[in-house]
Parts: sequence; C-alpha cells; structure tokens
Amino acid sequence: MDIKQYMQDIGQRARAASRGMARADSATRNRALELIAAAIERDADTLRAANERDLAAARAAGLAPAMLDRLALSDKAIATMVAGLRQIVSLPDPVGEISNVKIRPSGIQVGQMRVPLGVIGIIYEARPNVTVDAAGLCIKSGNATILRGGSEAINCNRALAKLVAEGLRGAGLPADGVQVVDTTDRAAVGALITMPQFVDVIVPRGGKGLIARLMEEATVPMIKHLDGICHVYIDGKADIAKALDIGFNAKCHRYGTCNTMETLLVARSIAAEVLPQLAARYATEKVELRADAEAHAILAAAGYPHLAHASEEDWATEYLAPILAVRVVDGLDAAIEHCNTWSSKHTEAIVTEDYSAAMRFLREVDSSSVMINASTRFADGFEYGLGAEIGISNDKLHARGPVGLEGLTSLKYVVFGHGEIRK
Amino acid sequence: MDIKQYMQDIGQRARAASRGMARADSATRNRALELIAAAIERDADTLRAANERDLAAARAAGLAPAMLDRLALSDKAIATMVAGLRQIVSLPDPVGEISNVKIRPSGIQVGQMRVPLGVIGIIYEARPNVTVDAAGLCIKSGNATILRGGSEAINCNRALAKLVAEGLRGAGLPADGVQVVDTTDRAAVGALITMPQFVDVIVPRGGKGLIARLMEEATVPMIKHLDGICHVYIDGKADIAKALDIGFNAKCHRYGTCNTMETLLVARSIAAEVLPQLAARYATEKVELRADAEAHAILAAAGYPHLAHASEEDWATEYLAPILAVRVVDGLDAAIEHCNTWSSKHTEAIVTEDYSAAMRFLREVDSSSVMINASTRFADGFEYGLGAEIGISNDKLHARGPVGLEGLTSLKYVVFGHGEIRK
Repeated sequence: MDIKQYMQDIGQRARAASRGMARADSATRNRALELIAAAIERDADTLRAANERDLAAARAAGLAPAMLDRLALSDKAIATMVAGLRQIVSLPDPVGEISNVKIRPSGIQVGQMRVPLGVIGIIYEARPNVTVDAAGLCIKSGNATILRGGSEAINCNRALAKLVAEGLRGAGLPADGVQVVDTTDRAAVGALITMPQFVDVIVPRGGKGLIARLMEEATVPMIKHLDGICHVYIDGKADIAKALDIGFNAKCHRYGTCNTMETLLVARSIAAEVLPQLAARYATEKVELRADAEAHAILAAAGYPHLAHASEEDWATEYLAPILAVRVVDGLDAAIEHCNTWSSKHTEAIVTEDYSAAMRFLREVDSSSVMINASTRFADGFEYGLGAEIGISNDKLHARGPVGLEGLTSLKYVVFGHGEIRK
Repeated sequence: MDIKQYMQDIGQRARAASRGMARADSATRNRALELIAAAIERDADTLRAANERDLAAARAAGLAPAMLDRLALSDKAIATMVAGLRQIVSLPDPVGEISNVKIRPSGIQVGQMRVPLGVIGIIYEARPNVTVDAAGLCIKSGNATILRGGSEAINCNRALAKLVAEGLRGAGLPADGVQVVDTTDRAAVGALITMPQFVDVIVPRGGKGLIARLMEEATVPMIKHLDGICHVYIDGKADIAKALDIGFNAKCHRYGTCNTMETLLVARSIAAEVLPQLAARYATEKVELRADAEAHAILAAAGYPHLAHASEEDWATEYLAPILAVRVVDGLDAAIEHCNTWSSKHTEAIVTEDYSAAMRFLREVDSSSVMINASTRFADGFEYGLGAEIGISNDKLHARGPVGLEGLTSLKYVVFGHGEIRK
C-alpha cells in the first residue's frame, strides 16, 4: 500500500465530507451522536471481542501493564463512552452563532459567525475511548475528522469506526465525516500532519514525546499540549489555612495530571511559619521535597524526613510524582519572575489576601490559566464549564488553556448589505 | 557578524522587554505613541535625508519606479505616519479586559483576560511607513516587536528606530520594546522565523512570493495573508440594479487590492439579462472578460469588444488587473461549490433578494468574509470598524479576515478563588 496516496485519499474524502458536516443543522448532528451511542450499546459484545484481540496481541508483544490498562475496554469504559456522547448531545451547538453585528458608516452591517474549522486530524495513543470522544466532539462542532489512534487498538478502532459511520449515515450525514486510519504504518502520521490542503488542524492527544516529534515535522497547525510545570506562590499576605489546603491539594490530589503543582514558591516573610505546617501535611503522603538552601534550612530544622537539595534542573522538571520543588523568594516580583522563567505556561496560582498583589499576579503571569486562592487542579475543561475538553493548549494563538467545542470552530466575518458599494 | 547569534540576542532582549510592555498601563503606552509622533514631526528633515540616501542607492541599483515610489518618504507620507500614530492612541486599549466571568459549582469564578501575545516579528518590504505603523500597533497592544524591513530602506528605518526608542524611553517603557533589525543580510529573516522561544508570532506584510518562502521554513506561527481570489455571485433572484453596481465596483474600484473580485458567477436564469448590461459598464474601463462557453456566447452576441475564452486556470488566478473571469452556473449550489473549490477563502459575495439563498451562502461559503448584497471591496479593517489593520488573515486559526489590535492579543483563563480545592 502506498501510504502517502492512501492518506491523501482519506484527506480528499474528509475535505469533501466537511462541507456536508458544516451544512448540517444541530438536530441532524445530535441525531448522529444518539445513533452512535445506541449502536455502541447494541454492539458492546462485538466491541469487547475486538478489544480482546487487541489485548491478546498486546500481551504477546509484552506491553507494560499500564498500557494494557489504557487499552482495555471494560463494561464501565463502554458505558462511559456512551454517556459521554449523550452529554455532548446536551451541549449548546457552537456553530452558526452570529455576534458583534455593527452598522458601519457605509451602511453595511458587519458581524462574526462561528463556523467549523473544516477537517480536524486527531492523533492519539492506544485508548479506544478517545476514538469515540473525539469523533463526538468533531461531529457536534460540524467538522470532518481523521482519527489516527495507537496501532495496538486497531481492531477495536475498526469496530468503532463501523458504528460511527452507521450513525452518520443514519442521520443523513456523509459517512466520511469521521474516518479512522486503517493502517498501523507510522508513515500515516507523517502524511497526516503534512497535508494542509486537506487538514485544517491537528490535535495530538498523547505524551510529550509524541508531540515533540510532531512539532518537528508538522506543516498543519496544531492545538497542542506539552507539559504542565505548574506553580503555587504563597504570598507574604496569604491566609495560612488557604495556603495549607491549596498547597496540599495542588500537589497531592493527583500526581499524574498536567495541572498538578510541581514547584512551590513561598515568600520569605512567611516561609518559616508556613513551610513546617505544610510539611506536616506532605509527610502524610511521603512527598519528597526538593528545596533551595533557604527552604531546606527551615524544613531540616522542622525535621522533615523526605528532604533533598534542589538544583536548577528541578525548576524545569514535571515530576508527575510525589516530589515537589520548593523555593523561598523575596516576594511578588521574584515569584512572577520565577513563573515566567520556569513554568510551562500552563497554570499558576497565588495565595494571598493582598488585593494589589493578586491583581498583579493575574495580569503579569504569562500562563494559560492564572488563579487567585484556588488549586491549580481546577485547570480543566469540565471545571471551567466548557462541557467537554478536546485538550489543553499551551499555545498562545487560537485557543489557550482548556479547549472545548469552541476551539474546534473559528469566526468568519459576515456582511449584511443593501447594495452598498465602496466609494 | 554571526547573524544567528545577532538575531538570538535581539530575540532575548525582546522577550525580556515584552514583560515590561505587557505590564505597562494604557496611559503609558499611549504616551509612548505620542512621544514618537512628536519626535517624527520634529526630525522630519533628518528622516527625509536618511530616505534620500536609501533612494539614491536604490536608483543606482536600478530599482523599478514602482518600488522607488513605495520607498519614498514624502512630506505627505510623514504626515500620514504621524496621524496614524495619533489615531492608534485614540483606539480603545485591547489589553486587560476580563470577560465571561462565571461562577462554577465548585465556587471558583472563571473568566478570560485579554493579554498581549508577547513578541511579534514583522517582516515587510521596503516601505518605511510600515516601520511606524507596525511599531504603533504592537506598542498599543502591549507587545514587544522585532521589525525586519526591506534592505533598501535601511537608512530610513535606522533613523525611525532611534525615534521609536526615544519615545519608549521617554514614557518609561523598555527601549528594546521595539527593535529594528540592523542588517541587510537575508539570513536574519531565516533566523527570525525559527526562534519560537523568543518570538510568539510572525506577521509577514508583503507579496505572495515572500510569504510562500516563509511558509516553507517558519517554525514560529504566522498570521499570514496569501492571495485574494474573490467572487461575486449574481443569483437568479438578484436585484439587477444592485448586481450592476456591485459587479462593477467589486472589479473596477481598484484593481491591485486583495479584496477585488477576480471571478464573476452568474445564475443561468438571469445571465442573458444581466451580463450584457454589466458588460456595458465594464466596457467603459476596457475590462477583459474571460468567459466560459455560455457566458462567452451571451457576451459575443452583445458585441463585447474585450472578450476571451476562460480556461480552468482562470478560476485559480488573481489578476490584480482589469481582467475578470466570468462563469454561468446552474444556481446557488453550483455557485457555493465553485467558491469553495476555487476561491482563496478571502471574500465572497452574493447578490440576491432571496432570503434563504442569502442565508445559505452566508453559512456555507468557507471564506474569511462572506457578504450579502455588498461589494467585496468592503473587506478591510477600517471598513469593518477595527480602527487599524495589521494585515488580513487567510488562516482559519486565531484570526480570520482583517486583523486589528485584538489579533495581537490572546485570551488566558483567570480564576478568582476563595480557597477552593478540588475534591
């Protein structure tokens, strides 16, 4: 098989289908989502059997248990997929809204209409649930989609693709509105990210390694998420109780998520008071604290058992583990400077009762989410009320932070005229 | 000189300065713009002398008269630059606005804050006025800027750079907030577009050739404008008087602009009536009509003197000249199909009194501006009320169509908490 030609054919069909997807009204797109949900419920046994074949091959290939876990399609995972589709049905339609209509001196009325982006390419790892989630979000937002899942999930993805196509056809939408790339050849990814004539945006959902590799080669724009080196700054005017709750929650609620705190900054004026109390909390979770000289002295004096010295490398590390870098800073300016130098521009929070410090932190920290007196763990599409999340963007252009359905659309200008010509 | 190192140094200084630019309040940024305007007025003689040196060198190098014309800095051009800066002062500040604040079930309040992008690289041809326009828009929007103008304007750009730096310093802003690349080495462009660590976005202002070249190499995102193959579709239910006015204005108001109509589509049911009347108008401007077989027959029968046969290549050509492609189509569906196949996704207009046809065209034509009963010539930042225009974007992500100050900003999420933690 000529992979490049195969992908170009998929791209061409996606581009053609994107017009039908964009033209469809809300009811039709929702109907497709409902039909897909019903088909998945109906064919749950077939899906599980396909998934079993993937799992058997993965076990034979010696895949790590964590990866097998993600690959597995349990009854619960199927129910979650179905519930996810029905939840997407209940979201407001992002497409077609016209806003900001103004009458200009020439007489024309100018506004902006929210429209689908066109064709979205999604590249992800061996998690079959992403196939359905991503297809659902793209159908809802009126886009055509090309899905390229991890090769270990190919049997399950093929089975899901059939059900998605059935749902699209049943609602009268083009069956090519969602295509699953049916080859495990890695060259397919290289082709997908270099055909801007057919693909408008790539959403990679996967680890840092995958995304770094795509960034080297892609000529199609990406809505991408790299790492989350998130900070909490405990200001000299912090409410100690809030500082303890947020400092503990931001690190220990979950270790493996991108919005988990990786570095704690503490103002010098409050460090000797707050650090030992916070350490008492971290001790319950055996969190290793990698501290700068000043913080180290305070924590050592308090007898913290899991203590190490921080090096500059720690400021740049996303641990995703019960490890936390700790640094004592002069105050607000130094905290902002540290964040803007070392953070991955994902999520930073300040704990303070000082109004001016809070407002300066909010304005001056250059990250996709900036918080006052809240845990960084809130940086999430569902917590923000987006209803769904296709990913979190570290980029500044287009979409920043958690990306919902709106991130899969763009605004075009619309002009309502009455025969006006330019003088 | 090691150009790569030189550009990295500029980039590093720009990144550092971007924080001071973003932090500055409206009054400070406006003060800088006013000081630059006053300095340009005061030093007009020096600027003209610098421009004379550029012109002398360009004449000696045998530059084409059109290019000399764009390079020249007349008294009028200086006055226009100064007036442009003062106009930018009068625009509302795009930075700092917080919108869409909502209270979530967790208790946090989530909103979005408009913030500068950071560092903007502008690449343009030998037009010294762009140096001041672009610097003004970037200062107003709180961004740091790296300006890379055409090498023929280097003396004038150096002189302008001094005045801009003087204005920034006078207002208490970092002098590195605007840097002019002080080398005519083309490698500087290659370096500028491949340092995403220092530059957040590139805005190329120049011809298609320049931009196509940049697209090959750039790793920094671009807000780019390629070509304008714009269409007017005269529907079967068009008001003939409006069709004649718009059809003439869209082609003949100016030939060299990107929002000029390049292809006219006419519904079969009205073609025999409207084409001869329209041709009578085009005849006054000696517009060459390149017609498909059906339109050719009608126009030949009407005795149109500047008639030729269209080939498929004409559907894909931006003439920028008194030449127009003409095609008779079945009706609305065929017109939408033609636009979505052949247009450059810039600006398309329908002339019709049919409500449903108008609304379908608006929704289904995938271009950055879609118009009903108005000349394509209105696709322009000033006509749309943006107050200023840094360029027109053919892209779908981030900014689409005319790009004003908002296009130089992005939205970050801001969270107002009260000590909330994630359960």
